[in-house]
Amino acid sequence: LKRITVAPSNAADDVYDVVVGSGVLETLPELLREAVAAPRFALICDSNVAPLWGGSVRNSVNASGARVDLLVFDAGEASKNRETWAVLSDALLERGVGRDACVLALGGGVCCDLAGFVAATFMRGIACIQIPTSLLAMIDASIGGKTGINVPQGKNLIGAFLSPRMVIVDPAVLETLPDEELRAGLSEAVKHGAISDESYFDWIAENAEQILKRDAAALERLVVRSIEIKTAVVAADPRESGMRATLNFGHTLGHGIEKVLGYRMAHGHAVAIGMALEAALGEALGITSSGTAARIRTVLETLGLPHDLPPEVDPAALIAATSTDKKSRASRVRYALLERPGTIARTSTGSWTHEVTPESVLHLLPHASA
Amino acid sequence: LKRITVAPSNAADDVYDVVVGSGVLETLPELLREAVAAPRFALICDSNVAPLWGGSVRNSVNASGARVDLLVFDAGEASKNRETWAVLSDALLERGVGRDACVLALGGGVCCDLAGFVAATFMRGIACIQIPTSLLAMIDASIGGKTGINVPQGKNLIGAFLSPRMVIVDPAVLETLPDEELRAGLSEAVKHGAISDESYFDWIAENAEQILKRDAAALERLVVRSIEIKTAVVAADPRESGMRATLNFGHTLGHGIEKVLGYRMAHGHAVAIGMALEAALGEALGITSSGTAARIRTVLETLGLPHDLPPEVDPAALIAATSTDKKSRASRVRYALLERPGTIARTSTGSWTHEVTPESVLHLLPHASA
Repeated sequence: LKRITVAPSNAADDVYDVVVGSGVLETLPELLREAVAAPRFALICDSNVAPLWGGSVRNSVNASGARVDLLVFDAGEASKNRETWAVLSDALLERGVGRDACVLALGGGVCCDLAGFVAATFMRGIACIQIPTSLLAMIDASIGGKTGINVPQGKNLIGAFLSPRMVIVDPAVLETLPDEELRAGLSEAVKHGAISDESYFDWIAENAEQILKRDAAALERLVVRSIEIKTAVVAADPRESGMRATLNFGHTLGHGIEKVLGYRMAHGHAVAIGMALEAALGEALGITSSGTAARIRTVLETLGLPHDLPPEVDPAALIAATSTDKKSRASRVRYALLERPGTIARTSTGSWTHEVTPESVLHLLPHASA
Repeated sequence: LKRITVAPSNAADDVYDVVVGSGVLETLPELLREAVAAPRFALICDSNVAPLWGGSVRNSVNASGARVDLLVFDAGEASKNRETWAVLSDALLERGVGRDACVLALGGGVCCDLAGFVAATFMRGIACIQIPTSLLAMIDASIGGKTGINVPQGKNLIGAFLSPRMVIVDPAVLETLPDEELRAGLSEAVKHGAISDESYFDWIAENAEQILKRDAAALERLVVRSIEIKTAVVAADPRESGMRATLNFGHTLGHGIEKVLGYRMAHGHAVAIGMALEAALGEALGITSSGTAARIRTVLETLGLPHDLPPEVDPAALIAATSTDKKSRASRVRYALLERPGTIARTSTGSWTHEVTPESVLHLLPHASA
């Protein structure tokens, strides 16, 4: 069992623990009592997670002496929208859930973000505890207080920050995670190594087989180290005003690819391609040491993750998708770039991100169109 | 010109100034530059305020060198809902407004809350500056970071906290405020005196005529003193976990009355009746010194505000409306009660609010039904 305390630099009230360990869910009643004095819990999960873990978590909360309401939404990224948010919020209101209640977000990244946004906006914010069940949610979405929903204009464009009261991570639940989702999570683990810990980056490459076989010790080590990296960055920059942007490595082009493909590609796969491309971009700009992109492609390949831009992604459309300002398709965009695996490159003025022209990106893409 | 700095006790980042003074809007470009480094502003106001102040504020922002988009929504409490929030948010996205932009909430309480909620949930929260144009918004809604919308289950049940970067209060704009809205704001000013400053409470009573005639000096003094009281309470308890509950004096029954009447009564009028009833409730419980309710009724009468429960409000319905838990209509509810005008009564255990049985409240109401 490992406890990692997150103490965001801007708010003493928002300190919380990430509790990680195989089997830690068996101590859920005690953990809940420690984290929050709530007489009532709203357990939110999707239709895939509900039959797997919903019942046992509900029983655990009951055992702690608190009342619990289970709310289930349709599994899938398509549910992460204003409508599901409104339906869940209304369900809490209809059941008389009050300000002293606590939301339990049990599930993958969609549930973390969606249930978190319900908590963040319910009566101006109520307590929330994250219980991530996917690797991606364990090492990324559940930590850092980002909550939100998607809108037709893009992903996560509507949302709020709400620090959870506790994050409870039990790698044992990864047993039921589909292979593709495990792989998608590993993409973020590679990113953690790439931006801040070369030895971790190498460890992932060397232990890919154990990790993909779901060796319990290997998975736990991976989850713990990734959470350590993510929490350190989040604590230093809770509101994403500086250093937190380093977590966007691979995500500027990754998000663009997702958008161009209408979100049919898994987030982790898009980020994998994004990392390979952004490493090559850094090399082309003379910011990233040569050979970095090759090392990233190798580890991605070992993990069964993609690293090449799919032919159906039009480069011009990708460039447009990376810009939030629709009226300036040719605007410069800021990228988090590596110095080498394990080290992020800062600009000469100390910025964590680099302004890159669309031409530099286009130049790099395999089949640039006019 | 007066500057009142609000430094919420929980977050060093969230310090902001309330700048008050007749004609202060003329210095808007400088104030904006001081408050926020935003290249772009989203000016949000309703269809009543837009023709009065929208153009001059827009020109001021332009004069500061920033780009400004003016977004207008239909005036009225009915607009303070999820749909208008979504339409405004989508408009910002469609125009390519980014995270470095700042929302300017120009208007009354509805605009403060609605535009504030747009800012609080746009890309996980962007900067917001409040420019209140009604008395109620100047001394209440614009200060303290409460933002939110109404849902069929009740008012302000969905929302978030977002400290503004600055609140800019120009009492000169009260010239165009309808009489009924001026009166509604005065109800909150009476509350400020009642919960924390007897001499201010008495000053309002003695200067009612000047205030209602909109004497500039009297209005400015009232606005400044009320803001001082509100900001002091908010700074001590930004997240409404304790002392801030004292601002709810008159509001527990006030909100209930609004709800029973389907929100056809002005908020300030409902609060006026709520204060008179809650003072009488405190007296009946032996918590409030006798004569307090009479003094409150007198000042309300002098200001042309109501203090009696309208006959169309069914007492049982009012009791039910004060409870958020629909399944426990008979549950006890916590009230902020006075010791005497100018002093809030704390419980023997130090709580700022008192648990009251529905019977105690029913007993007090003029025409209790079975």
